[in-house]
Amino acid sequence: MAKEIPYKIYLEESEMPKAWYNVRADMKKKPAPLLNPENHKPCTAEELEKVFCKELVAQELNETDAYIEIPEEIRNFYKMYRPAPLVRAYCLEKKLGTPAHIYYKFEGNNTSGSHKLNSAIAQAYYAKKQGLKGVTTETGAGQWGTALSMASSYFGLDCVVYMVKCSYEQKPFRREVIRTYGANVTPSPSMNTEVGRRINAEFPGTNGSLGCAISEAVEHAMTHEGYRYVLGSVLNQVLLHQSVIGLETKAALDKYGVKADIIIGCAGGGSNLGGLISPFAGEMLRGEADYKIIAVEPASCPSLTRGVYAYDYCDTGKVCPLQKMYTLGSGFMPSASHAGGLRYHGMSSIVSELYDQGLMEARSVEQTSVFQAAEDFARIEGILPAPESSHAIRVAIDEAMKCKETGEAKNIVFGLTGTGYFDMYAYKAFNDGEMSDYIPSDEEIKKATDMIPRFPGNEF
Amino acid sequence: MAKEIPYKIYLEESEMPKAWYNVRADMKKKPAPLLNPENHKPCTAEELEKVFCKELVAQELNETDAYIEIPEEIRNFYKMYRPAPLVRAYCLEKKLGTPAHIYYKFEGNNTSGSHKLNSAIAQAYYAKKQGLKGVTTETGAGQWGTALSMASSYFGLDCVVYMVKCSYEQKPFRREVIRTYGANVTPSPSMNTEVGRRINAEFPGTNGSLGCAISEAVEHAMTHEGYRYVLGSVLNQVLLHQSVIGLETKAALDKYGVKADIIIGCAGGGSNLGGLISPFAGEMLRGEADYKIIAVEPASCPSLTRGVYAYDYCDTGKVCPLQKMYTLGSGFMPSASHAGGLRYHGMSSIVSELYDQGLMEARSVEQTSVFQAAEDFARIEGILPAPESSHAIRVAIDEAMKCKETGEAKNIVFGLTGTGYFDMYAYKAFNDGEMSDYIPSDEEIKKATDMIPRFPGNEF
Repeated sequence: MAKEIPYKIYLEESEMPKAWYNVRADMKKKPAPLLNPENHKPCTAEELEKVFCKELVAQELNETDAYIEIPEEIRNFYKMYRPAPLVRAYCLEKKLGTPAHIYYKFEGNNTSGSHKLNSAIAQAYYAKKQGLKGVTTETGAGQWGTALSMASSYFGLDCVVYMVKCSYEQKPFRREVIRTYGANVTPSPSMNTEVGRRINAEFPGTNGSLGCAISEAVEHAMTHEGYRYVLGSVLNQVLLHQSVIGLETKAALDKYGVKADIIIGCAGGGSNLGGLISPFAGEMLRGEADYKIIAVEPASCPSLTRGVYAYDYCDTGKVCPLQKMYTLGSGFMPSASHAGGLRYHGMSSIVSELYDQGLMEARSVEQTSVFQAAEDFARIEGILPAPESSHAIRVAIDEAMKCKETGEAKNIVFGLTGTGYFDMYAYKAFNDGEMSDYIPSDEEIKKATDMIPRFPGNEF
Repeated sequence: MAKEIPYKIYLEESEMPKAWYNVRADMKKKPAPLLNPENHKPCTAEELEKVFCKELVAQELNETDAYIEIPEEIRNFYKMYRPAPLVRAYCLEKKLGTPAHIYYKFEGNNTSGSHKLNSAIAQAYYAKKQGLKGVTTETGAGQWGTALSMASSYFGLDCVVYMVKCSYEQKPFRREVIRTYGANVTPSPSMNTEVGRRINAEFPGTNGSLGCAISEAVEHAMTHEGYRYVLGSVLNQVLLHQSVIGLETKAALDKYGVKADIIIGCAGGGSNLGGLISPFAGEMLRGEADYKIIAVEPASCPSLTRGVYAYDYCDTGKVCPLQKMYTLGSGFMPSASHAGGLRYHGMSSIVSELYDQGLMEARSVEQTSVFQAAEDFARIEGILPAPESSHAIRVAIDEAMKCKETGEAKNIVFGLTGTGYFDMYAYKAFNDGEMSDYIPSDEEIKKATDMIPRFPGNEF
């Protein structure tokens, strides 16, 4: 007889992962390497170390080691807020009347309000170990900036955050949390950097963008002795650290003898999705199991479903290496009506390559239906979800309703990346019936993707 | 050899309490009964049932049953966000360099952001069971209003919240969370009620107070068919429900063979403190163990340390029963500089009686030192605490530092009631160096306590 499954499965401290899982080791065709934007040749470790911490560059380039040990200091920090619970959504199942079993991995039980802390603490640790003074980064919705400020204060590192100007103004409380952790927050574009001044001159009164804040943070790191740039998504190293999500999820399912049928994650830069699915994708790559994996993205920023797979700039200022990814073009800006995160023009190269190899599907959803799912979920399961996470909730509910039609008792697992406590402007718009949907036209997409560089080998 | 203590102790679902503990059963001298404000005679169940739900009145008056079963529906709801972890604050201990072992029971892992949900779900359950249409309440800092809106939406009850006007205006996001759960939020004093209109006429432009919002919510319940009033603190029934905090804490400590030496809780109306300490106070009352229990209150609203022990009005409008408690007088208003909750003029009659019997001490602390403790805690333990909870952190740190002086390895346990995500105005004032302290003068306190009714038997 199968063990009764509790509402929340918490692993024991001793069952927590001791190593991250590097899915690239099991990929026969590896994700394409980062390219130097000047000569279009693969970036060397030496080049990357000017921008990133040394050990993180090693992780970024490591395609062969399937497991990389989690240093003890990081594991101890993880113990303060992990293991994250794998929750059986009994109440939601009952409310939907579905035979499906719904599980979610809840990563919101920490002050950053999301999974971002999993990588922030790792990156801060390696920066400290390298003897650096501080780290620079950008933040959009604010979870990453909060996470990095927490991690930096823990290790006594200076933390410089460029916060997309519209978020800085619309999320004063998020900014205040970051300040409480001692970080320095600057609205971007600022007048602190060359690239900020250039963008301010070119687009007076601009509200900023993630791509622009990245450029500023990178420049800040490169022009200040003892600083390096760190990033909360997209990069291989971030997905490596986030594999702790998937490893814990799999361990919790295995403990109760549950085999996932469908695995769902929201996808912006790919950090949560990549982390959640890595160990499952690994099994698929090794031919050991099969899963239906669904990446969910906003219809207003549809990189996987409507972008092209090509080398592109990662940032507006074009100072970062080129990365091969599903992209809408670095000039693509989601409509002003788009709330929350998941607004990056590109996608993690690992996720992009797995998608290209057919290991997952992608689905885009519109935001009013996402917020409806969020509200339903909050009322039934008691957690007010982040708008980003609610994309996964939407599709999990849709899949559970399909099971209701077919009568199948599938095991649906989704990532609940975080909480929505700092997203109440968006909830207010929804509550007031003032939220709208936006789907970019084919012309808009074409205009943005036409700006992707067309050097030899970058045909699409 | 003692078992190694993990960073976080989560009880198994099967170890969660199945009954609440009613400390009054073990008190030889019981808390004084509620009095009818008109004839000064003990309120009858019949009188109370006009305002409160029937089963809750029974719990309110029950002085004999030590254990009251938690209905299965409530236990199932508890399973969605409980058990709350008992956290060993290894990082804080290390930072302080103290030989003390510090533990905190963290009640903030739910969307209401505090322990309030423990009683909200119970009260909503009994209201539903009674066939009511809805419940009315007041909220100050907003945790209780959020908790009740969550509980009401779960059981499909209408929820009417009178929110102290200054909080309504200063915490638009808190209000929006409550709306997301489908509740109706009105700033108090409003023009919906007699008492609200009277107070608005008497004090034009008033920012409201908890006592005034209580009066409005009670009147709303009594003038609307199918509605009852519910309250988030002070009452015996609330402390009964909140005993789940102390029961879990004790079970977790027992599991690891840890005997608490000092137990610390913040005290506003007494719901968290009373819930946390109940099972421990029970052992003291039965002569089975001894603990040093410390109630911590703000220096700006010092009911235990500077109030009188007497029958007083619970609300500004004087529509509620009289309660014997440590009180500053129902006209007492904490200074405008006071941030966060813990602003009620009185105190739970159970907590008051235990304090009067010498089972606990009380300590008052000033808010800048409270926010300093909050910031230190956030940076070390990774959780941004609620201002209320930070009162307990302050004293826990103080006690741990005393242990450092004496070299004693005491076990210090405190209640971390919730998170501060909706208190960023207060954190901003602290971050900007614009927060001040305020200690009411003896004259101010005398002026307020002079307004307490002086009927025979109410000498003080």
